[in-house]
Amino acid sequence: MPFQDHSPAEIDQIMQAAWTAFPVYRNTTLKQRADLMRAIARELEATGDELIQTAMRETNLPEARLKNERNRTMFQLTSYAEACEAGHWLEVRIDTAVPEKGDPDVRKLQVALGPIVVFGASNFPFAYSTAGGDTASALAAGCPVVVKAHPAHAETSERVAEAIRKAVKAAGLPAGVFGHVHGVSFEAGKALVTHPHTRAVGFTGSYGGGKALFDWANQRKEPIPVFAEMGSINPVFLLPGKLKTSAKELAAQLAGSVTLGTGQFCTNPGLILGIAGEDLDLFIKELGAAIEKTAPSTMLHPGIAKAYGEKRSTALKQAEVETVGVAAAKPAENQGVPTIATASAEAFFKNPLLHQEVFGPYSLVIRCGNADELVKAARHLEGQLTTALMATDEDIKQHRALVEAAQDICGRLILNGAPTGVRVSLSMQHGGPFPSTTDSRFTSVGADGIKRWVRPLAFQGWSDAALPDALKNGNPLGIWRMVNNDLTKDPI
Amino acid sequence: MPFQDHSPAEIDQIMQAAWTAFPVYRNTTLKQRADLMRAIARELEATGDELIQTAMRETNLPEARLKNERNRTMFQLTSYAEACEAGHWLEVRIDTAVPEKGDPDVRKLQVALGPIVVFGASNFPFAYSTAGGDTASALAAGCPVVVKAHPAHAETSERVAEAIRKAVKAAGLPAGVFGHVHGVSFEAGKALVTHPHTRAVGFTGSYGGGKALFDWANQRKEPIPVFAEMGSINPVFLLPGKLKTSAKELAAQLAGSVTLGTGQFCTNPGLILGIAGEDLDLFIKELGAAIEKTAPSTMLHPGIAKAYGEKRSTALKQAEVETVGVAAAKPAENQGVPTIATASAEAFFKNPLLHQEVFGPYSLVIRCGNADELVKAARHLEGQLTTALMATDEDIKQHRALVEAAQDICGRLILNGAPTGVRVSLSMQHGGPFPSTTDSRFTSVGADGIKRWVRPLAFQGWSDAALPDALKNGNPLGIWRMVNNDLTKDPI
Repeated sequence: MPFQDHSPAEIDQIMQAAWTAFPVYRNTTLKQRADLMRAIARELEATGDELIQTAMRETNLPEARLKNERNRTMFQLTSYAEACEAGHWLEVRIDTAVPEKGDPDVRKLQVALGPIVVFGASNFPFAYSTAGGDTASALAAGCPVVVKAHPAHAETSERVAEAIRKAVKAAGLPAGVFGHVHGVSFEAGKALVTHPHTRAVGFTGSYGGGKALFDWANQRKEPIPVFAEMGSINPVFLLPGKLKTSAKELAAQLAGSVTLGTGQFCTNPGLILGIAGEDLDLFIKELGAAIEKTAPSTMLHPGIAKAYGEKRSTALKQAEVETVGVAAAKPAENQGVPTIATASAEAFFKNPLLHQEVFGPYSLVIRCGNADELVKAARHLEGQLTTALMATDEDIKQHRALVEAAQDICGRLILNGAPTGVRVSLSMQHGGPFPSTTDSRFTSVGADGIKRWVRPLAFQGWSDAALPDALKNGNPLGIWRMVNNDLTKDPI
Repeated sequence: MPFQDHSPAEIDQIMQAAWTAFPVYRNTTLKQRADLMRAIARELEATGDELIQTAMRETNLPEARLKNERNRTMFQLTSYAEACEAGHWLEVRIDTAVPEKGDPDVRKLQVALGPIVVFGASNFPFAYSTAGGDTASALAAGCPVVVKAHPAHAETSERVAEAIRKAVKAAGLPAGVFGHVHGVSFEAGKALVTHPHTRAVGFTGSYGGGKALFDWANQRKEPIPVFAEMGSINPVFLLPGKLKTSAKELAAQLAGSVTLGTGQFCTNPGLILGIAGEDLDLFIKELGAAIEKTAPSTMLHPGIAKAYGEKRSTALKQAEVETVGVAAAKPAENQGVPTIATASAEAFFKNPLLHQEVFGPYSLVIRCGNADELVKAARHLEGQLTTALMATDEDIKQHRALVEAAQDICGRLILNGAPTGVRVSLSMQHGGPFPSTTDSRFTSVGADGIKRWVRPLAFQGWSDAALPDALKNGNPLGIWRMVNNDLTKDPI
């Protein structure tokens, strides 16, 4: 079903509605917001098989994966709802007056920024899209949300939007709490980011897309924050002790991670680095063999399949890049062919194309001359969402410089695990140094994602009755607060 | 004493030294950093009268004020040192593995961004300069600091830098932990902000200066965060109940705040708004009379005095702006003349120049037609560091729309207090919506200022021995941590 692009006038109306809803919505209680989020989760569940079928048709993703992803999206909504109610994110700090020093009473909490524009990802039609993590965390913060539907799954997005609208309506909230915009051309996105009522932007997608939004937002008369998660190649370092004992197991583990979901995850391991030698040779051989046995599968949409085909060809054509393994089965139209290649560290340092993302089931194994070259390669890389070390405890002790270098380039440092699979928990960091995201200080997974959409507001010299509940002496919300530099739930 | 501008090659060397010091400094313990900060405070104290005399000569600020400001700077260093050790800012979140769900163990803490470039303010030669809040919070975070000395107090800055260098040396830390750059031209600043090793920027000063740094930082190949505090006009709303009973007291209070430190505070109340009538007339008359009795005083440097003279003249020349009171005493060279003017709300809405900052002892009283016009005026204003309401409890109840509008435009909402005077406490928010700062989500006063210089890093699947101390099962640092969504100091 095709959707017409919203016109600039319609986009303005949608942003006006969000703006009008803002003072109402931000004054809801934490429980009201949590109830709304739980209601959205229920409405999402109620979309039943029809939504899954629509998403299958639009994204080519298999049924089991989409059902899982919808469950994950519901879990995000309900777990962020719990976090919303628990109120840690309000970061309440109270310093009572010290009259003898002339210090006034000052109390601070986090307040909503205002309407948030969310750009959904093509590769996660539920979890990073219309009712995904950005939307859930912004609703928890007290911000109205306007979603720009991804054109590759516009109907799925429309159905999810309908579920959200139902929940908003049932809660008796203004319809402007949630807006939904269709647009194939970049004009709709630009109109949203540059609209005066937009207060911040969340994005998951390509570097080109995210960087454009970031630049538009910073060129506004009044710049606004953009959290754009733009993917990465998620390097995996194979340390010598581990490689010696586990080459075959590592090959099997990484073959699974490289090809999971046809390689269409922002945490896909696109680069594997080890020290040249027999152990690495064995690993490469096993990885190549595993890849040859993996069947090609259909990518999200023809544009992504075409881009993968081209980038893969270009990568394989580079001097010193040697193909190791290619899926043996003949691919159908729009399928991504699982592929492993290898190159020397020298080639890697010389040719910047070898550290660029090839979005799909492709990975490049770099043969380093020694441990120092592993460190040099880590230092050579741009910012990453994740970095993985495959290492024994002894490896970790022996390779401190590599452990340090790995920390510098990523937001999540994994030991002996695949980068794919992102646990939805408060401890998760899904974000990292540029260009993996536009601001390494924030995350788009876990309830800490709420921090992107709030700012501190201090009340000085206010009487108890006029303060927000979170700041009142009696602590009616029963939340943890820093009072005169001590964490407590006690009343003042 | 004139200082030669550092050359691009020298600036590169200074940034290289900061970069080399980074891996050493970030691996110091919280106690080592706190000890360094306390040592800097002691060295600052040891500079004795000589530093005060130097600062007096360079800034024209009086001795008592400078002594106070040095004490405040020492308090910042020691109180942020305490916050550094307490470790709340590490925001530790631990979620232990749930094998039956396939969830790995994930543990997150905040880590240092890297070398921070700090631009000191002309109006706070100590507290917002070389060893000021930005430097102290960056050192707490584990970041080396490179300070660009303000050319208006270059010698003061050099002496403070020497005190910091002594403390760094005595601690046995690499000299690159602290760098100091002189530069009168903007080239030095640009070289610092665009240097590849710079990881973030702190700035306190004018809109023009802060916005230029922000733009350079965002135009880098790898953009970096800039927290620029660019000042504001800090509107004060006089609500009718309070004005009826306290017109004279409010006039005396605000006359003091407008002229404090020759009006050279970023929290100076440059705009006062009330509802036209007898009470407001009385307030204006009393404020004018108080200002006439205030002696002109010497401004920070000739450039600021000249800018004040020009902006004040331009403001007073605007149609419908009426001068209410001017200091009676004849000003000497480079002195700022305390001045109060008034205008109608109509003029205020028509003429954007009337909401621009006139940096110095100047304030404009706006006569609104009614309470709705007060709200309209609040909605008309750009982002502010502070907004003050002079109001009775009954006023607050009666004017909810104004209270809401006031919250929207500021970082600190004051009841019945002057905006000048910023308490150094965790609860303080010194920051606000653009253009008062470049990112309303952060503060430059209080230990929460540390958040500007850190990013989350998650460790997934690590063994206890290899984890940073803050994340180890036994909680050897004894800090508060979120463990499986509960705040606790208990070991795991």
